[in-house]
Amino acid sequence: MMGRLLLLLISPYLYSLLISTVALPTKPEGYHQLRPGAPFKIALFADLHFGEAESTDWGPLQDVNSTRVMSSVLDDENPDFVIYLGDVITANNIAIRNASLYWDQAVSPTRAKGIPWASVFGNHDDAAFEWPIEWFSAPGIPKIHCPVANSSCSGEEDCSFKGTQRLELMKNEIELNALSYSQFGPKELWPSVSNYVLQIFSSENPKSPVAFLYFLDSGGGSYPEVISSAQAEWFRKKALEINPDSRVPEIIFWHIPSCAYKKVAPLFGIHKPCVGSINKEKVATQEAEMGIMKLLIERVSAKAVFVGHNHGLDWCCPYEKLWLCFARHTGYGGYGNWDRGARIVEITQQPFSIKSWIRMEDGSVHSEVVLSPFINRDKSM
Amino acid sequence: MMGRLLLLLISPYLYSLLISTVALPTKPEGYHQLRPGAPFKIALFADLHFGEAESTDWGPLQDVNSTRVMSSVLDDENPDFVIYLGDVITANNIAIRNASLYWDQAVSPTRAKGIPWASVFGNHDDAAFEWPIEWFSAPGIPKIHCPVANSSCSGEEDCSFKGTQRLELMKNEIELNALSYSQFGPKELWPSVSNYVLQIFSSENPKSPVAFLYFLDSGGGSYPEVISSAQAEWFRKKALEINPDSRVPEIIFWHIPSCAYKKVAPLFGIHKPCVGSINKEKVATQEAEMGIMKLLIERVSAKAVFVGHNHGLDWCCPYEKLWLCFARHTGYGGYGNWDRGARIVEITQQPFSIKSWIRMEDGSVHSEVVLSPFINRDKSM
Repeated sequence: MMGRLLLLLISPYLYSLLISTVALPTKPEGYHQLRPGAPFKIALFADLHFGEAESTDWGPLQDVNSTRVMSSVLDDENPDFVIYLGDVITANNIAIRNASLYWDQAVSPTRAKGIPWASVFGNHDDAAFEWPIEWFSAPGIPKIHCPVANSSCSGEEDCSFKGTQRLELMKNEIELNALSYSQFGPKELWPSVSNYVLQIFSSENPKSPVAFLYFLDSGGGSYPEVISSAQAEWFRKKALEINPDSRVPEIIFWHIPSCAYKKVAPLFGIHKPCVGSINKEKVATQEAEMGIMKLLIERVSAKAVFVGHNHGLDWCCPYEKLWLCFARHTGYGGYGNWDRGARIVEITQQPFSIKSWIRMEDGSVHSEVVLSPFINRDKSM
Repeated sequence: MMGRLLLLLISPYLYSLLISTVALPTKPEGYHQLRPGAPFKIALFADLHFGEAESTDWGPLQDVNSTRVMSSVLDDENPDFVIYLGDVITANNIAIRNASLYWDQAVSPTRAKGIPWASVFGNHDDAAFEWPIEWFSAPGIPKIHCPVANSSCSGEEDCSFKGTQRLELMKNEIELNALSYSQFGPKELWPSVSNYVLQIFSSENPKSPVAFLYFLDSGGGSYPEVISSAQAEWFRKKALEINPDSRVPEIIFWHIPSCAYKKVAPLFGIHKPCVGSINKEKVATQEAEMGIMKLLIERVSAKAVFVGHNHGLDWCCPYEKLWLCFARHTGYGGYGNWDRGARIVEITQQPFSIKSWIRMEDGSVHSEVVLSPFINRDKSM
């Protein structure tokens, strides 16, 4: 019988304390208690793009639609945890000063159900506002509410369309939401922000983590689309520190596919060993590979990477010992009209397994796959 | 005998006051008194690109070189006025919070000689900081001085690389420099900032302006590269207000060539009626034409437009009744290694004429041209 799986925040400073005193997590809501005996189920909400085309009638309607998708998936799956896999908002379309208003809309369906979550940044989340060129022809710039702020030109309205930084967005999410497990990440990794690790553990054996969930910021928006050498080094050290014998499986989440995704991408359709339902575009990768993939493929405990970014891809393919998976486009914002859904990731403790499938907005399920820790690939497939 | 030519600030609110009370300009330095009998001479400093590659050894050296060019031109020409024709700084290379430090370096040679000036914005002046991708590989981000500021994450250092807005740059220039004639421009034209008009008048007849100098913000950086319909309309109304009978010649300055420049650009070399010395690249125009050119060509008093932006072009060509001129690349920052210099514009009152030439860093002069108000183009040329 499976024990309760719990989720625990790993602070860089408090980890040893947390491990030894699970009854005293850093915040009262610092763990999530599972249904007894059930595996730990995560829903990935990818590329919601709230705030897209905010100055049109079409835009706000998309956010209503995206909220409906999330509510539907949460009702159907009742997950233990949600991961917002980047491009939560389309900041380049958002003229107001603090885009956290849209971010807050995006997390509200999860919060409303009392489900904890964590988020990573995508390339659109802190992108600079892009002025539509049509605003410069007649009839000009539409009326936008410009709050009066303490700008450097004191007394002037803050119509600077400055955008909202990653740190501001994260601060708002964390401070306003007891259910958020997101972190700012180590300061030395900034401007890359969403770099942190959470653990899942069993209530029956709180000293023995079942899995580590790693979150990395794959950049974009205000800086290049890349996972840096410094992030890779942070992962290496952290993994060595908290999982020195690679005994505990590790699952990794970020937004933009690494270059390795291109190597495993099916040419036409989707065929075994890959599993998925849409393969409609080329993989749009990070700008460079700075070392994270080498670490992951050499690490026996690293099991799978999950990314968003490509709305027209939803497959999982094996790469060396790892699985490389796309989420499913969840939002009505963002390009592409493929039906919306969410990838579900289910972690079972004994024997350890990661199962995944895609739950669509209409309730249907497809593309179920077991992401076996050590896949035995049949070369004849 | 030519009277003294004076320069006067035209405030949108105080214009009539200024016209009728020339002894009381808005600030003591609000006019510039010419050498008696001499024409009014303007030096155009274009594309200085201060702060380019600031994190390298090469970058700061370019700024020293650019300062030398300006000092040399000012010594040789002793102009009455200087116009900074945009791309004063390369903001996309500037990591510090307030890029005005670089802007201030750029205006210092002019200030040091007590010469008044005005400036317009180019596409690089408020561009967002672009993180070099090599900073994300080992050895990582170089140490940059990050001032502690009142950021939203209070107590944290302000390493947000946010860039500096047009309004902040202009505020610093205006507030710190009594010799600056720059203006914020009408608020209703923002995010386009440097839109204003100055007049030159003769001390012998202070009620009769000799010429109006119009400055327009051709965009770029934080918003599209365009002169908007609203700016064109502002020009139309302002010109109608202060020069209703088109009696006073008008000269116009902005940074990015309008589409009309492409129409008159010489294909190979430079041949009459065009005058210049380099024609090394294609005209890089604004993204759209929203009406300003139509107004200018229909207005008999509009004589010439001066732009920068293309470092490899320095010609003047006629277009309808107007002259369209490039300045000369003045800065060592920015692309291109063509020898540096500055276009000089000399305005004579009676009979009215605009003469222009290029003064090089080495003291040589070339490409002299009289921009006749009503050029009689010989179609056989």
